[in-house]
Amino acid sequence: MFFIKTYRLSFFIFIISSSLFSFSQKDTDANKLDQLFVKWSTSKYHNPNNVLHLACQPIDTVRIAVIGLGNRGQMALERLPKIEGVKIIAIADIDSNKVNESADKFFKDYPYSIPEKYYGSNDWEIICQRKDIDLIYVCTHWELHTPIAVFAMENDKHVAVEVPAALTIKECWQLVKTAEKTRKHCIQLENCMYDFFEIATLNMVQNNLLGELVHTEGAYIHDLRALNFSKTYYWNNWRLRNLKKTDGNTYPTHGLGPLSHLLNIHRGDRMTHLVSMSSSQYGLSKYSNENASINNKWKGETFKKGDMNTTLIHTNNGKTIMLQHDVTSPRPYSRLFTVSGTEGFIQKYPVKSMSFSPNSHRSLNSNDINDTIIKYQPSVIKNIKQKAKEIGGHGGMDYIMDYRLIYCLRNGLPLDMDVYDAAEWSSIVELSKISVDKGSKPMKIPDFTRGNWNSIKKVNYFTK
Amino acid sequence: MFFIKTYRLSFFIFIISSSLFSFSQKDTDANKLDQLFVKWSTSKYHNPNNVLHLACQPIDTVRIAVIGLGNRGQMALERLPKIEGVKIIAIADIDSNKVNESADKFFKDYPYSIPEKYYGSNDWEIICQRKDIDLIYVCTHWELHTPIAVFAMENDKHVAVEVPAALTIKECWQLVKTAEKTRKHCIQLENCMYDFFEIATLNMVQNNLLGELVHTEGAYIHDLRALNFSKTYYWNNWRLRNLKKTDGNTYPTHGLGPLSHLLNIHRGDRMTHLVSMSSSQYGLSKYSNENASINNKWKGETFKKGDMNTTLIHTNNGKTIMLQHDVTSPRPYSRLFTVSGTEGFIQKYPVKSMSFSPNSHRSLNSNDINDTIIKYQPSVIKNIKQKAKEIGGHGGMDYIMDYRLIYCLRNGLPLDMDVYDAAEWSSIVELSKISVDKGSKPMKIPDFTRGNWNSIKKVNYFTK
Repeated sequence: MFFIKTYRLSFFIFIISSSLFSFSQKDTDANKLDQLFVKWSTSKYHNPNNVLHLACQPIDTVRIAVIGLGNRGQMALERLPKIEGVKIIAIADIDSNKVNESADKFFKDYPYSIPEKYYGSNDWEIICQRKDIDLIYVCTHWELHTPIAVFAMENDKHVAVEVPAALTIKECWQLVKTAEKTRKHCIQLENCMYDFFEIATLNMVQNNLLGELVHTEGAYIHDLRALNFSKTYYWNNWRLRNLKKTDGNTYPTHGLGPLSHLLNIHRGDRMTHLVSMSSSQYGLSKYSNENASINNKWKGETFKKGDMNTTLIHTNNGKTIMLQHDVTSPRPYSRLFTVSGTEGFIQKYPVKSMSFSPNSHRSLNSNDINDTIIKYQPSVIKNIKQKAKEIGGHGGMDYIMDYRLIYCLRNGLPLDMDVYDAAEWSSIVELSKISVDKGSKPMKIPDFTRGNWNSIKKVNYFTK
Repeated sequence: MFFIKTYRLSFFIFIISSSLFSFSQKDTDANKLDQLFVKWSTSKYHNPNNVLHLACQPIDTVRIAVIGLGNRGQMALERLPKIEGVKIIAIADIDSNKVNESADKFFKDYPYSIPEKYYGSNDWEIICQRKDIDLIYVCTHWELHTPIAVFAMENDKHVAVEVPAALTIKECWQLVKTAEKTRKHCIQLENCMYDFFEIATLNMVQNNLLGELVHTEGAYIHDLRALNFSKTYYWNNWRLRNLKKTDGNTYPTHGLGPLSHLLNIHRGDRMTHLVSMSSSQYGLSKYSNENASINNKWKGETFKKGDMNTTLIHTNNGKTIMLQHDVTSPRPYSRLFTVSGTEGFIQKYPVKSMSFSPNSHRSLNSNDINDTIIKYQPSVIKNIKQKAKEIGGHGGMDYIMDYRLIYCLRNGLPLDMDVYDAAEWSSIVELSKISVDKGSKPMKIPDFTRGNWNSIKKVNYFTK
C-alpha cells in the first residue's frame, strides 16, 4: 500500500529559462510561482504520469532527518545546519556512539533544539513516519538506500540518497515507480556534479564550445584498500563485504553522473546498451594476505570483484561512454572526466587539459585552463563559491550540492537531478555485473522514462 | 607453390640468457653460435612445427629492398643506409617521382651503388624474386602488406612489414602459415616498442617493480584529418578511403604492441576475447563538409568509421587491455600506455606518471620519473641512444627498431617481434569491426600459436 497524503496536491513548475537562477532564497513569492505554474501546466512537457521536471510546493524551512552517521552522514551534518532554512529534526545510526558524538559535535551553537536521536536498526521506519519531517537524507550503507528511500516517499517525504541509490534493476524501478506514484522528489546525492571543473564544463558544452559531443569517459579509481580493511571506517566492513560477493562496476555514479548531464541523458538522448569486462582479482587478495593485521579475519579470503572493471555504454544518438572502476590498485585517484566533441576536448584527470579546434593538438596551459573555468562558472556558483570553500566537503562541491537541494526545495523548483537519473546511473551496478558474468555480453539498459526520454531536449540548470 | 631454397637449412638459436645482449655486431663467431645451436636444438622450446624463437643463419651484410616510398618508406631510407651492415639493393613505388626523389636524396655519400629503381604496380613481385636480396621492407598502403609479405617469404626472403601487417583474420593466418612453412622471419615494424619510456617500462615490469600486472591501456589517438584529406600525403587518399568503408579499430598495433610484450602474450598468456564499441560518425563527416577545399570530391561523403572506437580485450590469465582508436577528433595525441599492477602504476599519456606501493596515491615528480627511465634503460639502448637521437625517426625509436632488426639478422638471433605478434596485434582490425557491426558482441581471438602460447614463459629481450 502506498500512502499519498498532504503533498499529493503539490504543484509543478517547469523552468522555462535559466533566468530563474537569479532567484535568491526570498524569491518564493506567490505571484511568480503562480505564473510559473500556468506555464508549466500548459507546457508540452507536463505529464501527470511521470515526474520529469517535477516541482513541489515550496518549503520555507526544510525539516530534515539524517539517517546513517558514518563518514558521509557526519560530513553532511557538518554542512546542512549551516544552510539557511534548514532544521535537523532527527539523526540516526545503528551505532549509538556515532549518534551521541554527532549530537555533541555539530549542534553547539544551533538555534533550534538538538535533533532527536535514534539508534535502533529499524528506527528509520519510525523516522519516516513522523509528521514533522520534509526530507529524509540517507547516508547508510548501500543495501539500505532503496528500502529507506521507497519507504520515505511512501510516507510522504522527499528523499535524498547517497550513491548508488540502488543496487539492482528491480530497486531502480522501485524508486521510479514510487516517485511517480507519490510525486515526491528522489534525488541521488551525486556530489561530483558540483565540482567547479565539472560545472564549468557543463556550461561550456551547453555554450557549444566543444561542438557535438561524441565520446566521454568517467571513472572511480581510488585506492580504498586501507579504508576497506579498517576496523572502524566502514561499519562492519560493509564495503569490503560488497567486493567479496559481486563483480562489475559497483560504484558507477561519480563518473557517470556528470557525463550523463553533459550528454543530456533522458533529455534528448538515452543510454541503450553496455558491455562490461573485469580483470581477475589480483590486488585485493594479495593485500588481504600480506597487509592484514594479526588475527585478521580477512586473511585468505577470496573476493569476487576483479581489480579493474571497464564498461562501455552506447547511447541512442551514437555517443559512447567509457566507465571504469578500480578501488584495489595502487594508483593515483582519478575520475577521468574526459569529454571529446567535434570541436574540442576537455579532460580533468590525471591532469587538466582543454583544447579547441583548430589548435587541438596541444592543450591550453594551466593558467588559461583556470581562467576558462572561472569564465564559465555559472553566476549561482560565483555567489556561493566563497562559502562553499569555507565549509568544504571535497573542496566545496558537497556544500554546493546541499545548497542547491535546499534552494530548489525552498523555491518549489525541480531538483538538478531526478529519480530517472538515480535509476539510470545506478542501473549500471547490476547490468555491468551480469555482462561480466556472461563473458562481456551486451546488456540492454532500461528506459526508465518509458518513452519520455526525448520530451525534454536539454539539461537546463546552471546554464548562463 | 612455395619455394623453400637456400636458407632452408638455416639453424636455430634460442636466447638462453639476457647476457647475449652484450653482443656487439662482431660477436657472430662460429664457436659461440655452435654452442647456442646445441642449446637450442636440445631445448624444450624447440619445435620444428612453429617459429617461436626462430633464429636463422647470420647475414653479414643485410641486402634490403624497400617497397613503398611514401611517408614511412622515405623515413626508412633516411635511417637504414646509416646502419652498419646494410645494403639497399632496390627501392620501389608506384609513383616514379618518389622513387627518383629518394634515389637522389638518400644515397649521396653511399659507399655502394645506387639502388635499382622500380615503378610498376606489380614490380614488388619481380623484386621478391631477385636472388640478391635478404630482406623485403614493406611500407606500402595497408592492403598490400600481407600479399607482399607472403610472396616475399615464399621467395625465400625475410620480411619486415609496416603496421598493421594484416587486415583480416585470413591474412593473419596466411602470414603465420607462410612463416612456419618457409621458416623465414616476418616482423611487423612496430616502432612504438622502442620508445625510451616503453622500453624502460618493459624492463621495470620484468624486474617486478609493478608486481603482477592486472590492467593496461593503449591507444592511437591522433587527429589525422588534415593529413587524410591532403591530396599528396597518402597516395590516392588510401587512408581516408579505409575510413569510408570500415569501422572498428583500424590501427591497433601502436597501442597494443608494447602492452602485449608487457603481458607476455604468447609467452605465458594469450588474448582470448574482445568486445568493441564505436561512437557514430560525427567529426570526420563535419570536417569533410566544412573544411574541404573547393571542388573537393570528398564533400558530402559518408564514412563508416565511428570517430572513437574502444575495444576491451581479455587474456587467459585474467588481465584486461583497453584499446582506443580515434583519428578524427580534435584532441592531443595519445597512446595512453597505462600499466597497472598490484604494486605500482605507470602511464605515459597525457602526462608521464609513476607510482609505487605504498606511496601510490601520488605520482613521482617529473625529475624522478626521468631518472627512473634512465635507470631502467637496457644497456643495449644506452649504447646506441646518442646515434638514435641524431638520426631520429619519432625521437629515435624508429632507428632503434631498425638497428635491432639488423643486429638480430646479422647475429642469427630471434627477432624482438615474431609473426605471432604480427598476427595477434593485427587480428584486432577485423575482430573489432565484426564486434562493432554486431552491437559489441564478444569475439574470440584466435590462438595463432595453436596451443604453444605457454611454452615460452616470458618476453626475454631487453632484460637487464
